[in-house]
Parts: sequence; C-alpha cells; structure tokens
Amino acid sequence: MIIRAGELNSEVFPNRFGGKGEVKMTRLLEKEAFHGKGRVFARNVIEPGSSVGFHRHQGDFEVYYVLSGRGTVNDNGVISEVGPGDVIYTDDGQSHGIENTGDTTLELIALVLFA
Amino acid sequence: MIIRAGELNSEVFPNRFGGKGEVKMTRLLEKEAFHGKGRVFARNVIEPGSSVGFHRHQGDFEVYYVLSGRGTVNDNGVISEVGPGDVIYTDDGQSHGIENTGDTTLELIALVLFA
Repeated sequence: MIIRAGELNSEVFPNRFGGKGEVKMTRLLEKEAFHGKGRVFARNVIEPGSSVGFHRHQGDFEVYYVLSGRGTVNDNGVISEVGPGDVIYTDDGQSHGIENTGDTTLELIALVLFA
Repeated sequence: MIIRAGELNSEVFPNRFGGKGEVKMTRLLEKEAFHGKGRVFARNVIEPGSSVGFHRHQGDFEVYYVLSGRGTVNDNGVISEVGPGDVIYTDDGQSHGIENTGDTTLELIALVLFA
C-alpha cells in the first residue's frame, strides 16, 4: 500500500512535554498498523527556538534520527549538540528532550517501540 | 545515548533480493537494541539504475519512507512511481521491490518490525 505524502496525517503539539513553541508531527504509520510493536513512527519538525521538553520513557523506547538542522539534546541529563545523521537512543527508563538551537528547521525521524 | 553519524554501521548489498546494482544500508539501530520488536531501522541509498528486487515479507512487515529521489515500486504486484514523502507499507505476507528510475540517488528510511 502506498500512502502519498499529501495523505499523511499531521498534528501540531504546542509546548510538547513542557517545551517551547510547537512541534509538528507527521505520522508515517498509524497506530493500528504497528502490529502492537510500537506507537510512533513520524517525521517531526521543530522550528528554531522550539523544543520537546525533557520527559521519561517508561515501557517503551525512542529513537530520533536527525534529518536536517541543529539541536541541543538533553540525553538523560547530559547536554550535547546534534546535527544531520546523528541518532539519539533513549531506552526504556531513560529521559530526553531536544531544542532547536539552530536557525533552520530541525527535522527528525522519531520511532517509539514498546520495550 | 548519542550515536554520531560517522559511527553508524553501513553495509553494501550487491543485487539485493535479485535486484540490480547496489544498495547501501546505514543501520540507525543495531538488532540488539530493538527489544525484540524488529530487525531493521536504516537509511538506504539506491543509486540510479539500482534496485531492491521483488521479495515477500513473512513474519514481519516493512515501511519505506522516501527521503529524496524518484523510484518505481512494485507494491504487491501493482507498479507505481514514488517520490519524497511517500510511504510504502508492505504488510506481513505481502511483497515489494523498488528501483531508482530517477537520475539522483533514491534515499529511504526502512523499518522492519515483526508481525
């Protein structure tokens, strides 16, 4: 089955997990298509100055893959800069947050699977 | 945990599933990091004229998300053109193949989870 770019569902989340500004999430896979293995496979767009607040994963784990832009990650308490091609792996029980500290959109693939 | 772009593992597969040329797969997640839920989360680069041959998924399902380039997909027997932002969902028991029919690299995110 092919789902065209224009048919994908997008949602805008203000102050995501207490973060700043807005995060736009375009779902690449709807929840019922996961065969129970996960809940998010999406392309997230974070505008400059916007962020996903620091939050903990419990019962699942998340992978961010940076497509474009620059950001500052709080990776379980450690602050790092990330850019295109970097992967942030947040395991079950760990926490993360990310802020667009660059001057272009920060675009990520986000994958959340159950642990 | 942050895995830098330059630390990710890449493999080159010639004649992938009987396809033409080569496919370069950069693994965004190693198999042991999936908590048993899947086996592939990768960025695949297919050069112009190269392809992934038509093959069937059994016991798992695959999602391709086109990042850039143009391709021709055999989606379970139906031929279609795809481009940036399109999603190809191949469920357990279904088959697919994809060829780069454009003149730039065809880049995809590939996700294989167990059904």
